[in-house]
Amino acid sequence: MKKREYNTKPPAGTRDFLPSEVRFRKEVLDIVTNVIESFGFEPLETPAFERIETLIGKYGEEPQKLLFKILKRGEKEVRGEVDLALRYDFTVPLARVIAEYRNRLPKIFKRYQVGPVWRADRPGKGRFREFYQYDIDIVGSTSLAADVEVITAFSEVLSKLGIKDFIIRLNSRKVLWGLTEICGIPKHLQADFLIVLDKLDKIGINGVVRELEKRGIPLGGFTKLILGGNEDNHAAMVAALRSSAVGREGMSEVQELKSYLGDILQEGVVAFDPFLARGLDYYTGPIFEINVKDFTGSVVGGGRYDELIGVFSPNNIPACGGSLGIERIFLILKDQKRDEKLMSPTQALITVWGEDYRRDAFVLAAQLRKRGLFVETYLGKDKISQQIGYASKKSIRFVIISGPDEKRKGTVTLKNLQTGEQKSILKNELVSILQLQNEFGKEGR
Amino acid sequence: MKKREYNTKPPAGTRDFLPSEVRFRKEVLDIVTNVIESFGFEPLETPAFERIETLIGKYGEEPQKLLFKILKRGEKEVRGEVDLALRYDFTVPLARVIAEYRNRLPKIFKRYQVGPVWRADRPGKGRFREFYQYDIDIVGSTSLAADVEVITAFSEVLSKLGIKDFIIRLNSRKVLWGLTEICGIPKHLQADFLIVLDKLDKIGINGVVRELEKRGIPLGGFTKLILGGNEDNHAAMVAALRSSAVGREGMSEVQELKSYLGDILQEGVVAFDPFLARGLDYYTGPIFEINVKDFTGSVVGGGRYDELIGVFSPNNIPACGGSLGIERIFLILKDQKRDEKLMSPTQALITVWGEDYRRDAFVLAAQLRKRGLFVETYLGKDKISQQIGYASKKSIRFVIISGPDEKRKGTVTLKNLQTGEQKSILKNELVSILQLQNEFGKEGR
Repeated sequence: MKKREYNTKPPAGTRDFLPSEVRFRKEVLDIVTNVIESFGFEPLETPAFERIETLIGKYGEEPQKLLFKILKRGEKEVRGEVDLALRYDFTVPLARVIAEYRNRLPKIFKRYQVGPVWRADRPGKGRFREFYQYDIDIVGSTSLAADVEVITAFSEVLSKLGIKDFIIRLNSRKVLWGLTEICGIPKHLQADFLIVLDKLDKIGINGVVRELEKRGIPLGGFTKLILGGNEDNHAAMVAALRSSAVGREGMSEVQELKSYLGDILQEGVVAFDPFLARGLDYYTGPIFEINVKDFTGSVVGGGRYDELIGVFSPNNIPACGGSLGIERIFLILKDQKRDEKLMSPTQALITVWGEDYRRDAFVLAAQLRKRGLFVETYLGKDKISQQIGYASKKSIRFVIISGPDEKRKGTVTLKNLQTGEQKSILKNELVSILQLQNEFGKEGR
Repeated sequence: MKKREYNTKPPAGTRDFLPSEVRFRKEVLDIVTNVIESFGFEPLETPAFERIETLIGKYGEEPQKLLFKILKRGEKEVRGEVDLALRYDFTVPLARVIAEYRNRLPKIFKRYQVGPVWRADRPGKGRFREFYQYDIDIVGSTSLAADVEVITAFSEVLSKLGIKDFIIRLNSRKVLWGLTEICGIPKHLQADFLIVLDKLDKIGINGVVRELEKRGIPLGGFTKLILGGNEDNHAAMVAALRSSAVGREGMSEVQELKSYLGDILQEGVVAFDPFLARGLDYYTGPIFEINVKDFTGSVVGGGRYDELIGVFSPNNIPACGGSLGIERIFLILKDQKRDEKLMSPTQALITVWGEDYRRDAFVLAAQLRKRGLFVETYLGKDKISQQIGYASKKSIRFVIISGPDEKRKGTVTLKNLQTGEQKSILKNELVSILQLQNEFGKEGR
């Protein structure tokens, strides 16, 4: 029977993670979570999908097109009706959770959520349709202290990951509103204006001007202000912003944040970037991004959004937070060769000389595991040399051999695959030798 | 503006996990993973969704109806076309992974995968549409040693979780084929027959007979054999099976498994259950389920399926494995009150006397974290009593208070919320006292 041919790659924009990759990602995530929990953030988990009406109208028109929609089941499937969609981020689910469980949560709720989100973006280099996000948010505090906490926690994460050379760019949506005010951008075009401004990094000043013209947004004094985008222009802009009440408010927020962060942060540079816009609609106060030297694009971004969390609740609820681009972090650490093949947690492979020896191997394995060791027996019927090849491929350090000779003498042969060294030892010495090696192994890592 | 009213519950059949629940689940999963890794199983992660053609035709007709299908994007969305579906289990994705990466994996590949799977089942008590599974599988070995390993690992998991009273029911698909042979069930009705037989536990012998009749499956000698389903009938059936070659082969497999497990297992009872069928089509050899005393339904199930993994590859690839019903495990442990509220990992809340004190609080927090402590500052502007209430709600053990008095004297007040005790200490004593308490705290758990 001829077999059907299948495409066995993962679906476009998704990935399979083989063991060493899973281990590397988990090791990094554990470091991040340890820092985040040291700040008192607590874990939350929400479903992979939400009701379609929960997600629609929350992200803006463009992002909304990227939702993966799920067909209704049964008869309605035939009619193509949709009732669910995969989560696009962790922020809208958080808003739903706050509305549903407000009374069971602390008044100020500091939560983190980590896991995959899904966006039907065109897949490309480093751009996935399924990717991990790592979000922290503080719900229920209007205090700038909360904004400080979010930025501090992320800075500490980068430091702990050994990423020391980063810059924290601060701005406030209020600065941007002031900017639109003094530039005379009509209210209904402000959101559009910010979306274009957000692309400054990518498309440069000429690109921004062109796109503003294309969208019919009047340029007026704006071009004069930002042309060149250098330090002088910043100064000119800051001077101009003084004539706007909201602009002044925004600048004082940024100043206060900067001063706090200066007192607390051990690493990283803090800078006011009046052109930092952030793509999403929902920010209402301070916004920030963190860039790592030699890597384009930001690795962290966030801000205050006092009107989003309340969308499902009777009243507005203040909140701020941010998202760590953990997939970019993985790439940065790999670039630094931080994913060098991790040793298997398995400390020894117990080879099986032949079927008559299998029962002994199982019993020995059980004994060693009882003493806290991670060991496995070989489950095939291959030659010892092939069994050793298996251990080597799995990065297992030790191989235990017990053939007729060893059985007669009550010994085993212990072979170190890293050094090639092998020696005959008594069976009851195994535990102490492997435990000792384990200690050294851990230190050596 | 009147707000739109939303349903803020998670979608039907899914759940939100608040912090203490996430912590409980993670603690249990960590114990399981520790055991599974001690057997040399390695982690694998595959995408949440697969191409629809990867999943169609693999599970049988009924399960296939339970797939959550994802709409194509863009224009094709309008036409209601589907190209992806959420994973139904981890077995078919494993088969795809084996076909795609065969050369990069060890010859005998022992992997585990844990995470959510999705099934559009009718939601009910303890039945979810999104639920975690914990699968282990061994690919590439025809040896019964692999079947032994899977069952041993799961038994060890239960023991480590403190679940001691369980029974491992063994059978082989070959026994069941022998049974259909001696009962004279026509080949094309055998799969149907096993599906009905699998319900014996739930619907009893009369239910089985009724459903067989309804499906037009001839009863013949079968009813006589299993009527009553007691020990005598087992014996009669075993005797009858001797006349079938495949039946004899199945029984000898079960005997060998039983003998191995008897040598290795510390806990649990092993029993031959000739009526154990398992619902899925794809098993080809030994099958098993594990039941825990006082809980209906099995907590583990699996078997050998030598013809499934190769479905995407040029040749058949032998495999066996099983699935731990981790959601049931959570329920069992909760039943045993093993989810008693875990203390927060946060060791102390640094209260904030007023805005003038906030900067000091931030700096103190940073200092304590640098020493490895988990602390947070209060981020709102509430009275100290409310701040203490917050700590208590989050199960934080210590509160640090520093008002004008303390500031003048260079002390802080440390309040233990568990005992109510509070004392004045020097600021530089904080680290050692909290570290010490932490040691005790850990031991106390």
